[in-house]
Amino acid sequence: MATPSDPQSAPPADPTTKENGVQENSSDEEFTMPLITNGRPLEDAYAKAFNNNSLWRRSLAETEPELFESLGKGQSPQILWIGCADSRCPETTILGLQPGEIFCHRNIANILVNTDINSLSVIQYAVQYLKVKHIIICGHTSCGGIAAALGNKKLGLIDTWLMPLRALRQENLSLLDTLNEVEKGIKMVELNVRAGVKVLHSNPIVIDAMSERGLQVHGLIYNVGTGELRELDIEEEEEIVKSRIVSFKTED
Amino acid sequence: MATPSDPQSAPPADPTTKENGVQENSSDEEFTMPLITNGRPLEDAYAKAFNNNSLWRRSLAETEPELFESLGKGQSPQILWIGCADSRCPETTILGLQPGEIFCHRNIANILVNTDINSLSVIQYAVQYLKVKHIIICGHTSCGGIAAALGNKKLGLIDTWLMPLRALRQENLSLLDTLNEVEKGIKMVELNVRAGVKVLHSNPIVIDAMSERGLQVHGLIYNVGTGELRELDIEEEEEIVKSRIVSFKTED
Amino acid sequence: MATPSDPQSAPPADPTTKENGVQENSSDEEFTMPLITNGRPLEDAYAKAFNNNSLWRRSLAETEPELFESLGKGQSPQILWIGCADSRCPETTILGLQPGEIFCHRNIANILVNTDINSLSVIQYAVQYLKVKHIIICGHTSCGGIAAALGNKKLGLIDTWLMPLRALRQENLSLLDTLNEVEKGIKMVELNVRAGVKVLHSNPIVIDAMSERGLQVHGLIYNVGTGELRELDIEEEEEIVKSRIVSFKTED
Amino acid sequence: MATPSDPQSAPPADPTTKENGVQENSSDEEFTMPLITNGRPLEDAYAKAFNNNSLWRRSLAETEPELFESLGKGQSPQILWIGCADSRCPETTILGLQPGEIFCHRNIANILVNTDINSLSVIQYAVQYLKVKHIIICGHTSCGGIAAALGNKKLGLIDTWLMPLRALRQENLSLLDTLNEVEKGIKMVELNVRAGVKVLHSNPIVIDAMSERGLQVHGLIYNVGTGELRELDIEEEEEIVKSRIVSFKTED
Repeated sequence: MATPSDPQSAPPADPTTKENGVQENSSDEEFTMPLITNGRPLEDAYAKAFNNNSLWRRSLAETEPELFESLGKGQSPQILWIGCADSRCPETTILGLQPGEIFCHRNIANILVNTDINSLSVIQYAVQYLKVKHIIICGHTSCGGIAAALGNKKLGLIDTWLMPLRALRQENLSLLDTLNEVEKGIKMVELNVRAGVKVLHSNPIVIDAMSERGLQVHGLIYNVGTGELRELDIEEEEEIVKSRIVSFKTED
Repeated sequence: MATPSDPQSAPPADPTTKENGVQENSSDEEFTMPLITNGRPLEDAYAKAFNNNSLWRRSLAETEPELFESLGKGQSPQILWIGCADSRCPETTILGLQPGEIFCHRNIANILVNTDINSLSVIQYAVQYLKVKHIIICGHTSCGGIAAALGNKKLGLIDTWLMPLRALRQENLSLLDTLNEVEKGIKMVELNVRAGVKVLHSNPIVIDAMSERGLQVHGLIYNVGTGELRELDIEEEEEIVKSRIVSFKTED
Repeated sequence: MATPSDPQSAPPADPTTKENGVQENSSDEEFTMPLITNGRPLEDAYAKAFNNNSLWRRSLAETEPELFESLGKGQSPQILWIGCADSRCPETTILGLQPGEIFCHRNIANILVNTDINSLSVIQYAVQYLKVKHIIICGHTSCGGIAAALGNKKLGLIDTWLMPLRALRQENLSLLDTLNEVEKGIKMVELNVRAGVKVLHSNPIVIDAMSERGLQVHGLIYNVGTGELRELDIEEEEEIVKSRIVSFKTED
Repeated sequence: MATPSDPQSAPPADPTTKENGVQENSSDEEFTMPLITNGRPLEDAYAKAFNNNSLWRRSLAETEPELFESLGKGQSPQILWIGCADSRCPETTILGLQPGEIFCHRNIANILVNTDINSLSVIQYAVQYLKVKHIIICGHTSCGGIAAALGNKKLGLIDTWLMPLRALRQENLSLLDTLNEVEKGIKMVELNVRAGVKVLHSNPIVIDAMSERGLQVHGLIYNVGTGELRELDIEEEEEIVKSRIVSFKTED
């Protein structure tokens, strides 16, 4: 019998009322818009999201009936996306892809720190177990985290998270001082993506996958006002590549 | 000459080719499919993603011309999504929403730890600065991180990240032992979402926003094989709510 | 000639002046008190510390001439100490031991979190590579971190670090409410040590070392006002031990 | 009255047996060596440590009767020590000081990362609340963490903690390649201390305390084979100091 704590349980007795308080017209033939009946108006973002999910999955089940069946069996994404938490940068949407195609980590300002086990675990899982072929680290225009790190206002805990950006700011201060505000922001976005690429290139698991099976790392900047992706030239001198391998590669 | 591993090759002479090596037909009237000219076949996931981005943004610019203009000016999402890095769970897609509607953090197995500054910074930024009205923490069926924590195989760094799941496993061991493998997985997904809700409810910034402006926290489970979202009943006894506020609320 | 970059170099030409600006009477026969000549008065805590180091090492070199020689060759401590950063709890001093006898991690309020790679690295190194025979986790009376977590004042970043203590506070709120302020503090110290023991007992490396070679974990409370150590009874029911091993033990 | 939860309570009814199983001759007049009666031989490091604690506190209570009384009332250390977990580097001992004089954080290879809330909390507490006048970051000769980072053997979780050392190794690879093994180790110790000083100098709380009340930061190297401390010249050009303040100082 279905208990409140059993999400795999059979549908409750009254088929028109779901645990989450959404009342749906259960007739698949009609496909009328489900009604949110738990007291939330449709203007509520959460109610709208729930409602849209219902529309989306019904539509997808109709147009691509085999997709959900396939997704139910597992995932085999070829890309790991490391991007910003910013609402304007949903990786699967902006790359025009389907669920199942991109493994994803998103945090404030797409910062990679080589001792952060949150992001490091995503990278390990994607590279070592899912064997993705590409890692994209993607910054974006109008990034709030970048703006914060270019300012000097105390913001709280997030100040600690942004410390690597301030370090980049200091290292490049004379360059940044020659730029106007907009250019400064974009330059910092770029410096941050390059720093992220460096962290990826220093990751022992990434190093191994690059040499053993051709894993590729890409640094991109996404323009939130046009939807356009720009790829940075991140090629390195052979000397740098060698020194990185000497310094970071580890073996059993 | 551009090699497959060199996406940032020098820009070709043809001025209609962009820095990222994608050759586009610049005539907006024709809207033919852009050609990837840097030597990557379209079968390559990265080339396809780049190509699809180009199709997506052109199409969107045509159908909703004001959207990019609006996104270029800023974001004001009403929802923060905390979900799994799993490729089958792209929040904006499965909620049928547009860029700009959901702020997002994704990590392995949507684990929240109350001392992890990566996720804590996302929460702070979303709640304190973007003033989102809803936080969704969403687990999903067939979660690889959950499966790993229910097994006993050494996996590397990720084992450290999964420690909170193993703690949940121990706390609920006698219950889990009564379930079959599938049920066990789903129960752990649920326990993990409930643990995440608890971390959110203990966050001083979340506590303040809940009492001051009605911020809501939601715990969901997403079924990757059907696209369906299920909302958990996370209501708490008043006594628990009180004890949490007494213990976690801080003031200047 | 000594270079600035070589701290192991021979003493500089003028034997009475060291790089650190301390002028010493170099005659070993006299053993007069070295004079701090770099402008710091002896009342300065740093000058005093430097001066005392000089006295200490000369005295030790005389009374136990073989000790430094032995320490120069390596370390083989049998104890790992995990304690508070509090200045009143210097482990080697309060245990009446010599340099070389206790490996040590100290942080605010001797908190152990099972995802904190700072403390986890100390534990791994001590258990797996140094093969210590004992781990002591030691709390202490009058702990400022404990007091902070029992209050509700916003303190900054440290509030995040203290979150596990607030979680303990909530879990034990009804018990704590029956105690007076002093008892409450001591009870929290004890609960925190017990939580630390639990983290240690859940660590896969500790689990293996306990079963394979008898590693022992101890939970202590140090009284800063008397110098006395009290050992907590941390023995667990066999059922708990079993469930922990089932849930946390991992294998290749 | 003593409660089970009060380790500061009076000894239990039978004064010769303590909770920790140590039987002591309770006559203060005799000061005979307490006997460890809980089955541990004195050769056991833990038994010895417990026994030595008893000897130490009795001796100190006699020679400096006011010290424990003073320590029972609080701490006011003037120095924060950030050092290695290595057993040969107990800060209070090697500086010839007493309990109460040095606040202390110790981790593997005295690494400071500007996003590590474990060490950052110690720094905040020491600087902002205890108002220490000096911060010492101290590396040491024969450091196992340094040796590990100069090798290429996979060691486990600790490899992640050591990543900042590998980054230093890469940045200084051509210099390090000119040195023999011993020199290389010492050079890395120095580079690591200098990196730690830089992290401290970039900490907003440290920046404020330096300018407002003259807090001083010191970088030292301790020779475990001689007991000697060497102070590094860490003075910076004014330009660097300025750029750091511009980039890292934050205000309400």
